[in-house]
Amino acid sequence: MRIIDEAALDDITLGSTILGSGGGGDPYVGMLLARDAIRRFGPVSLVDIEEVPDDANVVFIAGIGAPGVLIEKLPRAAEYERVLDELERFTGVTYDYVCPIEAGGLNAVTPFATAAARNLPVIDADGMGRAFPHLEMVTPTLYGGSATPMVMIDEHGNTMFLESATNSWAEAYSRAAVLASGANAASALYPMSGRQAKEWLVRGALSMAQDIGRTIREARDAHVSPVHAVLEKQGGVLLFTGKVEEVDRRNERGWTIGTAHLSGVDADSGHTMTIHFQNENLAAKRDGEVVASSPDLIMAMEIDTGEPIPAEEIRYGYRVAVIGLPADPHWRTEAGIELSGPRRFGYDIDYRPVEDAVTVG
Amino acid sequence: MRIIDEAALDDITLGSTILGSGGGGDPYVGMLLARDAIRRFGPVSLVDIEEVPDDANVVFIAGIGAPGVLIEKLPRAAEYERVLDELERFTGVTYDYVCPIEAGGLNAVTPFATAAARNLPVIDADGMGRAFPHLEMVTPTLYGGSATPMVMIDEHGNTMFLESATNSWAEAYSRAAVLASGANAASALYPMSGRQAKEWLVRGALSMAQDIGRTIREARDAHVSPVHAVLEKQGGVLLFTGKVEEVDRRNERGWTIGTAHLSGVDADSGHTMTIHFQNENLAAKRDGEVVASSPDLIMAMEIDTGEPIPAEEIRYGYRVAVIGLPADPHWRTEAGIELSGPRRFGYDIDYRPVEDAVTVG
Repeated sequence: MRIIDEAALDDITLGSTILGSGGGGDPYVGMLLARDAIRRFGPVSLVDIEEVPDDANVVFIAGIGAPGVLIEKLPRAAEYERVLDELERFTGVTYDYVCPIEAGGLNAVTPFATAAARNLPVIDADGMGRAFPHLEMVTPTLYGGSATPMVMIDEHGNTMFLESATNSWAEAYSRAAVLASGANAASALYPMSGRQAKEWLVRGALSMAQDIGRTIREARDAHVSPVHAVLEKQGGVLLFTGKVEEVDRRNERGWTIGTAHLSGVDADSGHTMTIHFQNENLAAKRDGEVVASSPDLIMAMEIDTGEPIPAEEIRYGYRVAVIGLPADPHWRTEAGIELSGPRRFGYDIDYRPVEDAVTVG
Repeated sequence: MRIIDEAALDDITLGSTILGSGGGGDPYVGMLLARDAIRRFGPVSLVDIEEVPDDANVVFIAGIGAPGVLIEKLPRAAEYERVLDELERFTGVTYDYVCPIEAGGLNAVTPFATAAARNLPVIDADGMGRAFPHLEMVTPTLYGGSATPMVMIDEHGNTMFLESATNSWAEAYSRAAVLASGANAASALYPMSGRQAKEWLVRGALSMAQDIGRTIREARDAHVSPVHAVLEKQGGVLLFTGKVEEVDRRNERGWTIGTAHLSGVDADSGHTMTIHFQNENLAAKRDGEVVASSPDLIMAMEIDTGEPIPAEEIRYGYRVAVIGLPADPHWRTEAGIELSGPRRFGYDIDYRPVEDAVTVG
């Protein structure tokens, strides 16, 4: 158990942008929310999953919406502070621990707002080890965990309780409700026991975000390449170094969908890369050949500063290093690839571990 | 108190098609559902609202969806039989009476399925005295009644409980959920006391549907005009007699929207009428001049048989009498017209009671 102070929150925020894999919403917005709650209610402790009793009640806290909306409309603290009370009223269960659904993006830190208000610890784990755009794409789904009973509350004062037949139906209902309400809601979902949390979740996911953030910060301070520091830390692969030439991006029912086209520089001079995204970066092709795909992480970082560039913001002129990071072992199973691999997103691509990519440069 | 037998159900079904004002879903489908439930669980009693104790707990039962989907996909009895149990589980309240939200269309009889399964009486009243396409367009809204807590269950096994800030938000969430689930769900909503039911509801709405149905049936048996019999019974106005020349109809997010163009016959020869519908018929223009509009009822009936023609089915070649029936007095107030008048549906038209229309023929 350790206390998360503002410096730790800053590192988690920076690292969660990398784990966001291009999506997941702007972690800076989540950080403001979490920091404000910690200042008002007091510090939050982060516990290792081994410290959680088997019979404890655990639940994910998450913001649901489209990243673009989350960036324009700040999530309101009030909803995150109240969302667990609502689930407890609905289920009659008292929850002992909260946990992020994804350590990538905004939702890495939204649970801290709930935890601070309720004086509960946050578990150092998540259900993705990254960010994904569908709420059924979590490791508990691989083991039969249910997204519901869940509760979702929006900024207008509407509360939706859901018991769904499948986690995909929970996604469909939540997405529809978020679009109807204006695309910003806080939710508590995937209630599970401590024992289930230990079996199902990606362990140490928040520490991983914090480590990546610290690595980038220290590399900047030491005037060495943040890109190479992150690759070394995470066992990742440099997929491409290039300049963004063109981005096709459209918004479709709250989704940011498109392709970024890059031309190579340095060792990649004369080559091209395309990054295909649906909120998150989901596939990367070098000279037309797939070199990385979901569930592995694909992320563009500004070459000089190491600043992570989300799919929403990537545009002409950026000079980026495109990196690939291996997904958590939970995802690299047959069931994991079926739930979150490239075919699930409509790409006619077989998943191949990113470490197998032939890299240049 | 009287027992609703299958003959009564048939008359209600026919009459509710007229009160459907062109929409409300196919009452025949609802009748099959209700009849089956009555055969399995036993007869249902219909009670006058004056028989309901002030402290009784009353709730609307309604199917939510787009009429087109309801016609193609039969609502399943299981959802109507279970929906009240779910609301009771959610609220902790036991309900004593069920009531249709609308006596027009399918939902005139869906409450009989719930009532039969739970051995509860149905109140001879409704929240519209007709059909409307939005769930906030009910008389309780005029008096501060709340649509929620409500429950909605679909055929896939999903249960949504809602507590909304306003009745319009309840509509937005329900509509979104219905579209996400495939547009067919049973709901229990607008919980109210017996005292509130007496103040808020349209009294005798189911008897009105039954009377209209009986009137049409008896006119057919007596070989007299069902159209004139209904007009006499309801104090309505014959707006036009003509032939359908053309129908523009589109489906938009579950809504059937369009215009039917008629050319006059007999006394209306040389004149035209357009009927503008959004699920229900909402405005009628004779030679371009508005002669009827919501909340008054506009309905096309086949001239010879008196068969009501829904907006979904009206098409080239039908010979119809277009009738206008006065809305319930609840609607003919400033608040009533604001909630359900033509401007609410985007028509730049002032409401004028249908009896004021200059009629020909």
